[in-house]
Amino acid sequence: MKKIYLVGLGPGGREQMTRQAYEALAEADVLCGYTGYVALVAEEFPEKETYTTPMTQELDRCRWALETAQKGKTVAMLCSGDAGVYGMAGPILQLAKGMEGIEIQVVPGVTAALSGAAVLGAPLMHDFCVISLSDLLTPWEQIETRLRCAAGGDFSIALYNPGSKKRAGHLCRACEILLETKSPETVCGLVQNIGRQGQRHRLLTLAELKETEVDMFTTVFIGASTTRRIDGRMVTPRGYENKR
Amino acid sequence: MKKIYLVGLGPGGREQMTRQAYEALAEADVLCGYTGYVALVAEEFPEKETYTTPMTQELDRCRWALETAQKGKTVAMLCSGDAGVYGMAGPILQLAKGMEGIEIQVVPGVTAALSGAAVLGAPLMHDFCVISLSDLLTPWEQIETRLRCAAGGDFSIALYNPGSKKRAGHLCRACEILLETKSPETVCGLVQNIGRQGQRHRLLTLAELKETEVDMFTTVFIGASTTRRIDGRMVTPRGYENKR
Repeated sequence: MKKIYLVGLGPGGREQMTRQAYEALAEADVLCGYTGYVALVAEEFPEKETYTTPMTQELDRCRWALETAQKGKTVAMLCSGDAGVYGMAGPILQLAKGMEGIEIQVVPGVTAALSGAAVLGAPLMHDFCVISLSDLLTPWEQIETRLRCAAGGDFSIALYNPGSKKRAGHLCRACEILLETKSPETVCGLVQNIGRQGQRHRLLTLAELKETEVDMFTTVFIGASTTRRIDGRMVTPRGYENKR
Repeated sequence: MKKIYLVGLGPGGREQMTRQAYEALAEADVLCGYTGYVALVAEEFPEKETYTTPMTQELDRCRWALETAQKGKTVAMLCSGDAGVYGMAGPILQLAKGMEGIEIQVVPGVTAALSGAAVLGAPLMHDFCVISLSDLLTPWEQIETRLRCAAGGDFSIALYNPGSKKRAGHLCRACEILLETKSPETVCGLVQNIGRQGQRHRLLTLAELKETEVDMFTTVFIGASTTRRIDGRMVTPRGYENKR
């Protein structure tokens, strides 16, 4: 059977990968992905063929993976975090539509919402939303609508792609929208380089977050109205205290 | 240093755990958790002390973990999925408030939204919400508000705790709320016993989901308006096709 694994690596190296993900990489003939992600694991598999493309070449990479699988090779397509969250699982399944004889298996991984939350404490203990601030593939108006709805539902929020040189000002604008209904004192958190060298985090208020610049290696967490700062951690209560 | 690890096991056994999670279990003196979760890993560590409590005794378990850590033992508190998503990371951090000399480390894992999505295809490829339908700790009115906001933002939605004997009718009511604004043809998916013996899944429409009874081992996925059924998989496009 011709096979493609869509492998979620988790945030960084081997430690944060599941055994299932590791075994998919070990089984594959070719490791394929964005240059930086392949580099994260290539030293574990120095003998493997690799195929890497830069950041914006996702569809080319998917087509290459499908063509290579059709030639009979087992391909592991590497994604940081989870392959199904802003990863390559969707594009591959869309491009493979109607192709016969290729098995596509998604191997999940720890996405940045979870790995970043673990660094901060427990900001996503109750209902939460994950929203990307990148408008490369999504109209900005839709992003604004989702931010307003996330605030309206008092969800905890994890923001992906909160900033880059091309998207300066997106996080500030997002905070302005959230501040239409949320308190400026809302507990927020930033985690940079999760699970990698140079990991850093800090807690701050939503008002402070609005004035903060972040890079593309940062995940942003915005609390619900119930979220608290406890001994330096960001914690959203589940509600046990109401039950007592 | 006295230490508690909050360990997310992922959906099932060893295969879906990260190496970091496995090493936390290996390092711990005591494995502590809900009886069923401890059973999932206890055979890997037959020599370890274990402390188990039934499902509704979460706070007792957290207090026991803190007391045991204070006595100098390293405790691993086991959670299915991710420790920070409806898990024990929050209650432990709340109960540990002001305690000195105990290090609490959250080790993230693959939560059911991610592991279930991988089974179905790629339903969470774009912005999504995670909502629990359990009203044990959350007023039902708040759950309804969040469902309406999730529908208003056209998020993909993962529903946790969609049903149980005590909560018969919750999923039906949730579907009614979503159907106020979402199409009855919205692509939905169910995954039961994710990553465990007896794993099953199916795709269905939101109208069909409304008439479906599910158990507490099921995770429910509700698509965005863009979500499609592709060769038997549930896929939410990221938007690459708009760019072309």
